[in-house]
Amino acid sequence: MRKIGVILLSGGLDSTTVAAQAQKQGYETIALTLSYGQKHLRELESARKIAEIMGIKQKVIDVSFFSNLAWYSALTSEFDIPRNRQDEEIARDIPITYVPLRNTFFITLAGAFLESEALHLIEKEHISPAELDASIFIAANAIDYSGYPDCRPEFYQKMSDVLYTGSKLGTQYNIAMSIRTPIISLSKAEIARIGIELGAPLEYTWSCYEGGEIPCGECDSCRLRAKGFAEAGIRDPLLTRLQKEHKIA
Amino acid sequence: MRKIGVILLSGGLDSTTVAAQAQKQGYETIALTLSYGQKHLRELESARKIAEIMGIKQKVIDVSFFSNLAWYSALTSEFDIPRNRQDEEIARDIPITYVPLRNTFFITLAGAFLESEALHLIEKEHISPAELDASIFIAANAIDYSGYPDCRPEFYQKMSDVLYTGSKLGTQYNIAMSIRTPIISLSKAEIARIGIELGAPLEYTWSCYEGGEIPCGECDSCRLRAKGFAEAGIRDPLLTRLQKEHKIA
Repeated sequence: MRKIGVILLSGGLDSTTVAAQAQKQGYETIALTLSYGQKHLRELESARKIAEIMGIKQKVIDVSFFSNLAWYSALTSEFDIPRNRQDEEIARDIPITYVPLRNTFFITLAGAFLESEALHLIEKEHISPAELDASIFIAANAIDYSGYPDCRPEFYQKMSDVLYTGSKLGTQYNIAMSIRTPIISLSKAEIARIGIELGAPLEYTWSCYEGGEIPCGECDSCRLRAKGFAEAGIRDPLLTRLQKEHKIA
Repeated sequence: MRKIGVILLSGGLDSTTVAAQAQKQGYETIALTLSYGQKHLRELESARKIAEIMGIKQKVIDVSFFSNLAWYSALTSEFDIPRNRQDEEIARDIPITYVPLRNTFFITLAGAFLESEALHLIEKEHISPAELDASIFIAANAIDYSGYPDCRPEFYQKMSDVLYTGSKLGTQYNIAMSIRTPIISLSKAEIARIGIELGAPLEYTWSCYEGGEIPCGECDSCRLRAKGFAEAGIRDPLLTRLQKEHKIA
């Protein structure tokens, strides 16, 4: 079986853990890192460093035009990022950080790339379609971010149907590109634990919505991360590294 | 009823006719024109001219990065474009001009834009969701281009499911963005006839895969267009214009 996997690698804790899982499962992985007009490029630097450490080929694409189209969003605009919200507030609503069709967009890009690679293997390198596993890995999570419609399993099922029905790979070769969401039902504590177990370079991951030298500690993303490591009973390797580098006390 | 429509306007005969249909049906239309690394920009110029003549607001986005991702394609690469093929050859296979997940990508961009507009109307201008029709218009055609998997009705049904399940508009406001494909079952002759009847500026449309001063007349797209106008018993307004401008005899 020839296993190829395109992993959407943002540079955060979740996608870095998923990349380690894909490698562990024997996939030839290619990281797709999308820069889409975030307020900062800090996360992008993390993704480059992580791909390098893990020995994963990486394609970085600037899709900042997307924030112009999907202009109803906060991560990519001037709205304030909420601070110090309680867990129940974080979980209750569709977050204001919602970006219209963000994961549909990301999966489509990963799928177009993966389909090209797969068609090349079949048509030029004569790999039998029956011997090919072509998968997309995405670090979607339906627990900590229950408010996002495009982080739920039912969305990924619908999206898989589209990739099959709308592609040459599906209609001509009967290959369903799998969308693998290995951490979709895991808590942040479980994700952190798996990342550590697999030896993922979590010390270079970045979760904070802000782009400072050190994490702000107050945005939803920082709070969820801190809570996760606390529950797992593990010291966050990022904090250990920043301490060693004398960036935090 | 407030009707807003995002129309994917390429500058070809088909999408120009669909734009005229959307206007006729009373939609506030916004054209989304995507430049994605075609061999030429001739089509893009046509789209600008057509939006201007029709009085449609237009957003033009450079998505040429997509040809880098979806590299298995011919329209966007260096493969030769087939010439002088017979109808049965054109219809039989998935054309070599197939671009992986092209229409999935296009619909996703139109959907992200449309969702932003719709959420703004609901949340800031207090339009009732029950009073809103938010539609995407795409000039997909399953007759002349029967080989493309993403030009078939079943693909659009799956894609609609994704837009509903993966969006705030669907999950929070119960609005299904409709994907309208008004010419999907029409022959080129019928499309030409409708375009003429609605007064669409067909004389500025461009169908040829090449980017010359005048259409090549030999590529699949030129041949289908010529056959369509011949069957409709209408002289192609583009040829009439080029003749008046002394560009053809």
